[in-house]
This record gives sequence, C-alpha cells and structure tokens, in this order.
Amino acid sequence: MAAPAPVSPLAPKTFADLPPIDGVRLATGEAGIRYKGRTDVLLAVFDQGATVAGVFTTSKCPSAPVDWCRKNLTGGKARALVVNSGNANAFTGKIGKAATELTAKLAAKAVGADEHEIFLASTGVIGEPLDAAKFEGVLDRLAAEAKPEPWLDAAKAIMTTDTFPKVATAKAMIGDVEVTLNGIAKGAGMIAPDMATMLSYVFTDAAISAEALQKLLSKGVKGTFNAVTVDSDTSTSDTLMLFATGAAEARGAKKIKKPGDKLLRDFREKLDGLLLDLAQQVARDGEGARKFVEVQVTGADSHKAAKRIAFSIANSPLVKTAVAGEDANWGRVVMAVGKAGEKAERDLLSIWFGGIRVAHEGLRDPAYDEAAASAVMKQDKIVIRADLGLGKGEAKVWTCDLTKEYVAINGDYRS
Amino acid sequence: MAAPAPVSPLAPKTFADLPPIDGVRLATGEAGIRYKGRTDVLLAVFDQGATVAGVFTTSKCPSAPVDWCRKNLTGGKARALVVNSGNANAFTGKIGKAATELTAKLAAKAVGADEHEIFLASTGVIGEPLDAAKFEGVLDRLAAEAKPEPWLDAAKAIMTTDTFPKVATAKAMIGDVEVTLNGIAKGAGMIAPDMATMLSYVFTDAAISAEALQKLLSKGVKGTFNAVTVDSDTSTSDTLMLFATGAAEARGAKKIKKPGDKLLRDFREKLDGLLLDLAQQVARDGEGARKFVEVQVTGADSHKAAKRIAFSIANSPLVKTAVAGEDANWGRVVMAVGKAGEKAERDLLSIWFGGIRVAHEGLRDPAYDEAAASAVMKQDKIVIRADLGLGKGEAKVWTCDLTKEYVAINGDYRS
Repeated sequence: MAAPAPVSPLAPKTFADLPPIDGVRLATGEAGIRYKGRTDVLLAVFDQGATVAGVFTTSKCPSAPVDWCRKNLTGGKARALVVNSGNANAFTGKIGKAATELTAKLAAKAVGADEHEIFLASTGVIGEPLDAAKFEGVLDRLAAEAKPEPWLDAAKAIMTTDTFPKVATAKAMIGDVEVTLNGIAKGAGMIAPDMATMLSYVFTDAAISAEALQKLLSKGVKGTFNAVTVDSDTSTSDTLMLFATGAAEARGAKKIKKPGDKLLRDFREKLDGLLLDLAQQVARDGEGARKFVEVQVTGADSHKAAKRIAFSIANSPLVKTAVAGEDANWGRVVMAVGKAGEKAERDLLSIWFGGIRVAHEGLRDPAYDEAAASAVMKQDKIVIRADLGLGKGEAKVWTCDLTKEYVAINGDYRS
Repeated sequence: MAAPAPVSPLAPKTFADLPPIDGVRLATGEAGIRYKGRTDVLLAVFDQGATVAGVFTTSKCPSAPVDWCRKNLTGGKARALVVNSGNANAFTGKIGKAATELTAKLAAKAVGADEHEIFLASTGVIGEPLDAAKFEGVLDRLAAEAKPEPWLDAAKAIMTTDTFPKVATAKAMIGDVEVTLNGIAKGAGMIAPDMATMLSYVFTDAAISAEALQKLLSKGVKGTFNAVTVDSDTSTSDTLMLFATGAAEARGAKKIKKPGDKLLRDFREKLDGLLLDLAQQVARDGEGARKFVEVQVTGADSHKAAKRIAFSIANSPLVKTAVAGEDANWGRVVMAVGKAGEKAERDLLSIWFGGIRVAHEGLRDPAYDEAAASAVMKQDKIVIRADLGLGKGEAKVWTCDLTKEYVAINGDYRS
C-alpha cells in the first residue's frame, strides 16, 4: 500500500467559510464502517423538507444507492441525506439493495420522515457488503445533535482518498431577496485504491420547484462536473444533488415554479459558478496531481465536437505525462486532436501552451521559443489551447497531470 | 530524459529465424536522421514488383507518408519500400509533403521504378522537418547492396523506443505449393518520448491480386492489430502493409485474383496468426510494461459490444495500475464494464482473473479466495475475463500494465 498522500500542492490555500442555511441541519459521526478514528457518516436533515434534484453516473453498473436515489427523485421531496464513506455498496447485488432499504428505514425513523424522502450515497470499497445495521442508533443520535454548522466537518466525513475537503459558497438574488448556496464535494480519482466515486451536494434556502431545480442542475452540470476528468474512468456511484429548503420564502423570496422564470437568472449564474468551483477542486485533488490543466478548444465544427476533442486531449496519457514532465510536447496534442474522431484539418490547426503559440497552420510556429514554452510548463496551472480553424465550436475542460504518484496510489504495490 | 529502458521482461526469449522470400531484397543503412551509431533507414526492393495492400491510422491528422501511401495504394503495385526512424515527418505541412516526394524520387531512381510504386514510412519526432536530402546516395547504395537477408536487421532499423526487434514467419499452402510469409513490426507506446508510431510490414512470395490482398489485410487486422492497445493513444503514422511478390507462381502456385478464392484458406489463417503474433509483440513491448494482459469478454449483446467493453477494460488506467500492482481488483473491472456504454446488467456479470472466478451474478464470488487470485496476479501474463450473461458476443484484446516506468519514459522529467 502506498504511503498516505500529503495534501495536494494544488489545494486551495484557505477554505471558504460556509454560513448556515435556513432549513438545513448537519451532523457527522463515526459508524465504524471501515476507517478508525475519523468520521464516516454525514446526516443532513431538512426539518421542513426540501425540493430535490440529482444527476448520476452514466455507468451501466450503478451502485445500490444510485438506484435508490433515482427512484426517490420522482417524488421531488427530501427530508434527509445520509452519506457514508468506507464502503461504496456497489456490486453488492440484493444484499446491497437491502442495505439501502435498512439505511433509509433507520434514517426515516431518526428524522420522522417517509423512507421515500431519504436520499443516500456510499463511497469506498466496491463489492464488500455494507453492514447498514451499524447505522442503528448512530443516525438517531446525529438527528438529535444536528446543527446548522460546521460545513467543513460535513465535507470531511465524506472524504476517501481526497487530500483536502472541498467546499464552496455563494450568494444569489431572487428578486430583492438574497439567498445562499453551499456546496460540498469529494473526488480524488474516479476510483481510488478500491474507493469509488465523485460525490457533491449543494444546498440552498431558495424556494424552487423540483422541476425547475432539476433543469438548473442538468444544465449546470454540462460545463462543470461533466467537463472535468482525472483519468477517464467513471465510477459506479457518481452523484450530484441539489436541495432547496425554501426557507427564504419566509423572508419574501418568491417561490419559483417554472425553469424558465427570469427571476432565476442570478441564481443560475451563481449555481454554475459554484459547481465549477467544486468540480475544479475535484480535478485539483486528482490522485497524484501536481499540475492543474485547462484544455481550451476553439474553432471546431460544433460545440459538441469541441468538447470531444478537448476530452481526447485531457484524457490522453501521453499529453498528461508530458505535462507532468513539464514538456511542451505539442506533437502529442496533435495526436490527441487527430484521434478524437471529429473533423480536423492538419494544415489549419494551431496550438498554444499558455500564451505561447507553438504550432500554426500545420507546422511548428516559426516564432516558437522553447525556453518560453518551458517556462509556461513550470507553472502550477497549464492552459493548453487547440484551435481547429474550422468553425465556431468551443469547449473548456479541466484535468490534472499523470504522475508516478498516480500509479503508486492506484498500483497498491503489494509486496 | 529517462535512462534507456532495458529489454522488456515480456520480450520473447529467442527471435524467429526468417528465411529469404523470393522477390524481396533488403538493406539497412545510416542516413543520420537523428540517431548516431545505429541504422535508421530500411530499403526493401521488389525487383519484379509486388502487389500491395495497406491499412493506416484513423487519425484525422495523419503524417505526410501516410497520405503518400494512401494515394499510391490505388495503383496496387510496389517496387520498393523506404522506412526511416528518428523523424516521423508528421505535422510538417507542405515541407513534409515535399520530403515524401523527394524521398520517393530518390528511391525510384535507385531501384529504376516509377515514383508511384514507392511506399514510405517515417517514425520518430513529430513536427520537425525531415531532411530527405540525407537519403541522396544512401538509397542508391542500399539498392545495390540489398540481399534476401537478414530480416532481423530490417526490424532493428525501424525501431525507436522499442526494446526489442519484432519479427515473425510462417509457411502456408496455396494448393500444393508452399509459400512463405515474413513480418516485421515496431511499436512501443503509440507515441514515445516524442516518437510516433506503430509500423508493420508483411512480405510473401504468394501470387495474390492487390484486391484480394487488401481484403485479407483489412479483415485480418480486426482481431489482431486493431485488438491491441498500450495507452489508448493513436499515432499520426500507424501503418500496416502487405506485399506479395508472386515469385511462387514460378514454382507452380496459382495466382489468386478473387478475395473469396478457396485456395486462400490456409494463407488467410497463417496471415492472421502472423499478424496476431506481431501485434502481441507490440503490446509486450509497451512502454514500461511488466505484465502482458489478455482481456476476454463473453456473453455480450454483440461482438461489437464485446470489443468495446474489452477495450474499456484494457484502456482503463485503474485496471492497468491494478495489474501493475498485482492487485486482483475486480471492482475496477466492473467500473470499466459499466462505463463502456454497452448493455450490461450488474446482477448477471461474472469476472475471472486467470482461472479464478472472483465475482458472480452481481456479487463477490462466495468461493472467492484472495490468496489464489493474488497468485494469478503474480504471473507475467494475466487473463481478465468478463462474462456479461446477456448474449453471444465475444471479443479478445491485448494490452500491458501501466507502471511508473511508463510515466517516467513519457514524462521525460526535464530538470
């Protein structure tokens, strides 16, 4: 087993200070699922209920909690969220389904709700049965203890191989009334040693219907969580949920029913910003990451083509190892553009590392200066841009480099 | 720059001894393209001509020699093949096109042929102009010197970061007459430090029309070269060609015109076997490889679905690092099956490492024995099998593990 990773050099220097959100209480505890001496279960309680939206992994082999959440989402209403770390309850068959049912039952009893208003997630080892009986008593205690803060503890309880907790906060105006958005996330690799999953939860006191909330989230995820990659692997458990308590209605915030309501403009913008912040923190904590990489594709045939090309670059092991080696190896970017399967014309292609144009119209840039390009590659954040010279399609995606530490963390070199 | 890699631990213990092929003469030389003190150019001459077939990279940004070969292939006839290592002549724009034209002109003069009967390939650095004038004189000398052997020298001249030359040979019957097939290949990563390319050339004295030859090759590549992956990256220069001199006609072999001719049965089988041998040698020499991995998918919805799932497993960084770490981490295989985008049902899925069934019907196998699975993982060759339990779709693909050495070789840690 590799030594525990130190904190990622790309971690934020300070953590955002998340204020309370009316209608949300939090508590964390030790259920002893796998870890010793750290919290491994988070309970979030919405005493007056909350509307809810979610997006989940595209995996054809999703975890039991993902199945559970998808089913309950049709009700559009949440009373509590339970997240455990240490065991993913994935690939656990009927036993896994029974574990979600028991967890939901215990949580429903603890908060006095219906089981169908309970949302769940599990992150950790795949294929091991989750002993949900361990939540008995623990959830009762957490429901009684739960307080409006601290949010950082909530982010810590859901960590697996993350080297830092991920939090973000924002204020938005619904008409004349200010509302709050708080978000927490965990990531690291898509599946660390045997740990599964990217999880993220966003909470707000805005009053927004489940229908409108789902639209906001489904749209917001595209340029944010669906635009980051660590290693191209997709977990069985990826979950992003948005809960709106509606408590701001008491302060005069209008209740929003339609996704198209103009009053949502500022909220949508702030939500997208918060999702991007959390998603980028996930990439910054990619296993073994030492460089944060932004890939920009412009001039593609369509936005869709641009995104596919951007991911081809961001997922290429050869591009990622070149970044790790601080090597301005634009030939590999050409390779990744070429293999993406989208329209590309070699003699129209230009490539930049940071502000340095290294290739232009199918040739090394005549003004190319290796020293200047090398200086760019030494920075913590590298921007790689490819212009296809074909159309107006654009996309940005984010990733990290591929280092020996990634192999060490995931190789688990048993001796 | 990483230290030169020693020979891959997965290299064959001995090299096949390739006999002469009537109608093929070979010579290698030092054109001084990039390397010092080693051969970097191969000339193969077909004095009486040969029919020819080829398959090339699917990259939308192919190298200049790939463009050249595609164009000449329409003629169906070859008089010579020139391959250089050290420079890929890729992403070199009009200068690159001019370099292919000059090389072909020099080769055509050297062997007394038409330029459209000359086939070319270049492998090495991307984006650097290739100085084809360096072939002047060299190709004349090689054409004069060329002999029916030794084939191993030919395989060595086209190496870049390969740690061993790749050769294979086979005999096949066309009716009552025995013909010979010889093949050489180079690979390593798809693009090494900045080196491009998988190249492979097969030669035979059988008399087969270009049309039939192309059909044989296009079909043969599917389960062989198109079923291996090192790092999912596709070079700008990948080339596989098949040359048939027809010299066996003088020994009574029938000239085959139609792809469907029943006389081709044994030849097709031997060709496929030879292509598979060469393709597997490429995977065995994957950069940093210490384990050779065969991925078998059975019970999928279709053969196409099976192949896509097999590649999802074979290209997964998390599966590959688990193999490197000798960790029977079947949860990652579930993950890779789930993300492939093909039909999969968690509760029907079974997974084996070697002969050990580790997961069955959506659960860890009740009889799972960690010690037995770990023993499998210590071997040089690992077979990973996933049975989807859905239909009759099957596929096999081959790859290698992902090690720290891969990152070191490709990260080119400049200090």
